[in-house]
Amino acid sequence: MRYPVAPPTLADVAERAGVSRQTVSNAINNPDLLRADTLARVQEAIEELGYSPNRAARNLRTRSSHLIGLKFQPAQEGTANAAMDRFVHSLVETAGGAGYHILLFAVGEDEDHLRGYDDLLRATAVDAFIVTDTYLGNPQAAWLRQRRAPFVSFGRPWDDDAADHPWVDVDGAAGVDLATTHLLDRGHQRIAWIGWHKDSRIGEDRRSGWTRAMHGRNLSTTGLASRTEDTVSSGHDAAAVLLDEAQPSAFVCASDTLAMGVLHTLRDRGLTPGHDVSVIGFDDSQVAQVINPGLTSVRQPLEEVAVEIVRALEGLLSTPAVVSPGVLLTPTLAVRETG
Amino acid sequence: MRYPVAPPTLADVAERAGVSRQTVSNAINNPDLLRADTLARVQEAIEELGYSPNRAARNLRTRSSHLIGLKFQPAQEGTANAAMDRFVHSLVETAGGAGYHILLFAVGEDEDHLRGYDDLLRATAVDAFIVTDTYLGNPQAAWLRQRRAPFVSFGRPWDDDAADHPWVDVDGAAGVDLATTHLLDRGHQRIAWIGWHKDSRIGEDRRSGWTRAMHGRNLSTTGLASRTEDTVSSGHDAAAVLLDEAQPSAFVCASDTLAMGVLHTLRDRGLTPGHDVSVIGFDDSQVAQVINPGLTSVRQPLEEVAVEIVRALEGLLSTPAVVSPGVLLTPTLAVRETG
Repeated sequence: MRYPVAPPTLADVAERAGVSRQTVSNAINNPDLLRADTLARVQEAIEELGYSPNRAARNLRTRSSHLIGLKFQPAQEGTANAAMDRFVHSLVETAGGAGYHILLFAVGEDEDHLRGYDDLLRATAVDAFIVTDTYLGNPQAAWLRQRRAPFVSFGRPWDDDAADHPWVDVDGAAGVDLATTHLLDRGHQRIAWIGWHKDSRIGEDRRSGWTRAMHGRNLSTTGLASRTEDTVSSGHDAAAVLLDEAQPSAFVCASDTLAMGVLHTLRDRGLTPGHDVSVIGFDDSQVAQVINPGLTSVRQPLEEVAVEIVRALEGLLSTPAVVSPGVLLTPTLAVRETG
Repeated sequence: MRYPVAPPTLADVAERAGVSRQTVSNAINNPDLLRADTLARVQEAIEELGYSPNRAARNLRTRSSHLIGLKFQPAQEGTANAAMDRFVHSLVETAGGAGYHILLFAVGEDEDHLRGYDDLLRATAVDAFIVTDTYLGNPQAAWLRQRRAPFVSFGRPWDDDAADHPWVDVDGAAGVDLATTHLLDRGHQRIAWIGWHKDSRIGEDRRSGWTRAMHGRNLSTTGLASRTEDTVSSGHDAAAVLLDEAQPSAFVCASDTLAMGVLHTLRDRGLTPGHDVSVIGFDDSQVAQVINPGLTSVRQPLEEVAVEIVRALEGLLSTPAVVSPGVLLTPTLAVRETG
């Protein structure tokens, strides 16, 4: 079966209008050269066929594809982490308003993490990148800078104080401080922290919000913290140990995934979340929103992140290019029944 | 602050290699014209700078962008529905393997739903589309066909028996039949259905799997079904009414969102899921995976869906174009504690 796949061409317009291709070209580029009735006929054919001068030709003239590359990282199954979905949607909407489309690429787990960038960059398929995984020692930022590829990172350049690229990030410490202070204001004093291993700069940043809030009230944090993997079972185990050894009345966690583990431990022990022991997570996931009782959680302003990233991209891609300073946004607390 | 945004050009290569632009052009297009040492010097400069003949120029020659447009629809907050995230990731990986990138576009709630398609199509920015919302009366398929835009739909053409576009779908009826039969085999006889309103063809299809399985065992479905909105609170209310009026021992739901509502009702009444009353959802969401007890749920083979969609796209974009027949894939059941 044949399928008419090609979009309409200039030749199609010429045939429909019963004129030469040169006449169609003139109608587009030099309409004054044509008689009014001929011009009207060509314009009618253009409208009917939905013809548009080829974007590839336009790109060649402007040296711009109006595409922004984003490596898509899906939520891991078996976790509650799903911020990417909300972030990507905000980004697609905001970028669209500025005339850019988001081009997704994937990098397989076994592959060279830079290959996807290299492929897109060498072929000039994208005008710029958005980099989302700025973990410690991540080579992407340095590599992109070296290739003179414009990019904005969602995440601070943790390992590079002299970074000369724009970035947008959410203040995790402020979010956890907010959560901890919320519990302190409700009378809790023994508030435990369950976070990630020390090599996670994001995790250490979030943890610092807990120590800041506790120390601000002259409360000790000794023996009240646990560092573990970001899995439900790790959160479950860490909560069990802390309950046995430190008797906290509340938990603040670096993720909703860890908070789910804490809730499982409370259930094992017949403790009611929000009544016997309070629990606060981080990311305001779907899971936090639909479980019963609902999980109180720190919510990242991802819509604002998208706006700031697109603003920074527009600066980078203007002439002359402007590198906007880093932007640190403050999260909010979605208060539900658990804390 | 200036920022070096431009990718390397042919002129950059010429300067680095200390040769004319014509020589660089010859090195790429007519290497036999050059002396071996000159060619080597140009190739070295190309390698060092990461220069690649401009993609826009290549696109113009091939009339192809190697981009596939996908309207991104985020999971609604407050629901457990998140199949899109897993689907998009599979799609990006599979399409990448076939030499295509996924270009996302958004359509605001207030806007003309066809505008995003129109913009991309008129500018020839994409080679084809993937359409994901094939609900009853959806004008996209007809509109795209009329514009001769190649597309593959994830979803059957419910309202168009004579559809001449490729489609890939998951057999929702088979999935619900599987779930219901699983409960029947465990001895349940009064199995209730909570699904969507009658105007949802997907919902009616899923429901038909429940009636098929029940009638296959000569069991009545009278009084055991509820049609409602796809929200947690609707599932909660529907379960309360069914428990009062029909005393089911198990629930099969059209979504994990509805199943979460059922679990809330069981909690209200002190009933233990999987022990007192069984519950099965649909979509194998993160929520199903991380709650305790875990929610048994029908799982769509989204990785296979992506493979089949890319296969169909490759057919459409080959010369001559090939329209592959529709593909209906069978889901599996992720069995956990609730059913």
